[in-house]
Amino acid sequence: MRIAALIFPDIDQMDLTGPFEVLSGIAGAEIHLVWKETGPVRDYHGLVLTASATLETNLDPLDVLLVPGGPGQVPLMEDEKVLSWIRARASQARYVLAVCTGALTLGAAGLLQDRRATTHWNSTHLLPYFGAITEDARVVVDGNLITTGGVTAGIDGSLHLAALLSGEETAQRIQLAMHYAPEPPFASGDPAEAPKPVYESVLEAYAPLTEKRLAVAQRLAMAQRTQPAAGH
Amino acid sequence: MRIAALIFPDIDQMDLTGPFEVLSGIAGAEIHLVWKETGPVRDYHGLVLTASATLETNLDPLDVLLVPGGPGQVPLMEDEKVLSWIRARASQARYVLAVCTGALTLGAAGLLQDRRATTHWNSTHLLPYFGAITEDARVVVDGNLITTGGVTAGIDGSLHLAALLSGEETAQRIQLAMHYAPEPPFASGDPAEAPKPVYESVLEAYAPLTEKRLAVAQRLAMAQRTQPAAGH
Repeated sequence: MRIAALIFPDIDQMDLTGPFEVLSGIAGAEIHLVWKETGPVRDYHGLVLTASATLETNLDPLDVLLVPGGPGQVPLMEDEKVLSWIRARASQARYVLAVCTGALTLGAAGLLQDRRATTHWNSTHLLPYFGAITEDARVVVDGNLITTGGVTAGIDGSLHLAALLSGEETAQRIQLAMHYAPEPPFASGDPAEAPKPVYESVLEAYAPLTEKRLAVAQRLAMAQRTQPAAGH
Repeated sequence: MRIAALIFPDIDQMDLTGPFEVLSGIAGAEIHLVWKETGPVRDYHGLVLTASATLETNLDPLDVLLVPGGPGQVPLMEDEKVLSWIRARASQARYVLAVCTGALTLGAAGLLQDRRATTHWNSTHLLPYFGAITEDARVVVDGNLITTGGVTAGIDGSLHLAALLSGEETAQRIQLAMHYAPEPPFASGDPAEAPKPVYESVLEAYAPLTEKRLAVAQRLAMAQRTQPAAGH
């Protein structure tokens, strides 16, 4: 069971560490953290992860390609080296899992065209720019593509994926080992339930990042429309 | 806001990364990962964390001392260097947060005597050896001591702690940013709800580790009983 997870500067570490916790519980799982160079990669709040492989490391065939999100995914959407790597790995991986705004990176790689998908609640309005069919769900499974809501939704999505990879009983064992019977102390986990001032304040904090993402999404959508049709 | 988190070989990375995600969302939070040496520290499934400080680094005064768990906490229960560090930091920290079997490490340091506490469901029976009053809850707050159930319960406990440190609205904003409106795909997150064969299989997988923990807990309880009373 071989899994490659893209990591990058200013990743949201939990987009990676949540799925890592779940998927590493599958017997024989081997998880490679991939970036342009091996070595330390800092998450946007300062947690230091370590890349064990580069974009050149031969990791195929893959059971899972994992694409996390976070503020640092914005430049990846126009980084052809990273996008080519994602396309190549996705074309042969058994499953592709995008967590949080990792879905936008997949979108920029052209992998969401006509696929049902979701992402962090703050970015769902951007999915149509990539040709995706936005689904209002925490975890969306469309064929071999799994996309999830923000950050902690990666845990739910990975448990779904663990069941697809190794059966429901394995996923249930992992869930029990993780003591995953959550009791969020507040009703504030998504916009539908959060108090309005809380929602507005988080939305405002995200605004500069959201504007950047929108600008990139618009640029990419425009470029695609003005591209000559494939093969001509 | 200064936080010191103990890390160690064979930690369960999510005991650390869950709370990190929450607490790093507090404005001005500064989180130090502490081990005997700075540098890479491998979690029990292979994720590489990086210690940024040592037991000798002066980090006081602390707002939070975070003690995670995992298979690697067993030797810490008889590691006087680590236990002294925990005692010294805990004596001046505003809050002490133990996640998962981190509670057993606190217990070995003598910090659970007559305190209400919880831990991973597989280890709750060990808490009385440390003089703790076991409480059947996912998050237990006893004065400035917060203990949580296993692994993912660290997220719930940290959100409680964020509210204590910075108010409920801050905690709610962090919860919304993390999109923490969990939807576990199975009813298998704790022994009360897990299918019996799933529970039994996980219990069996834990057995060797549980035996080791029991042996240490018994040894420590015995040593304490045979110690001369303090001051004599």
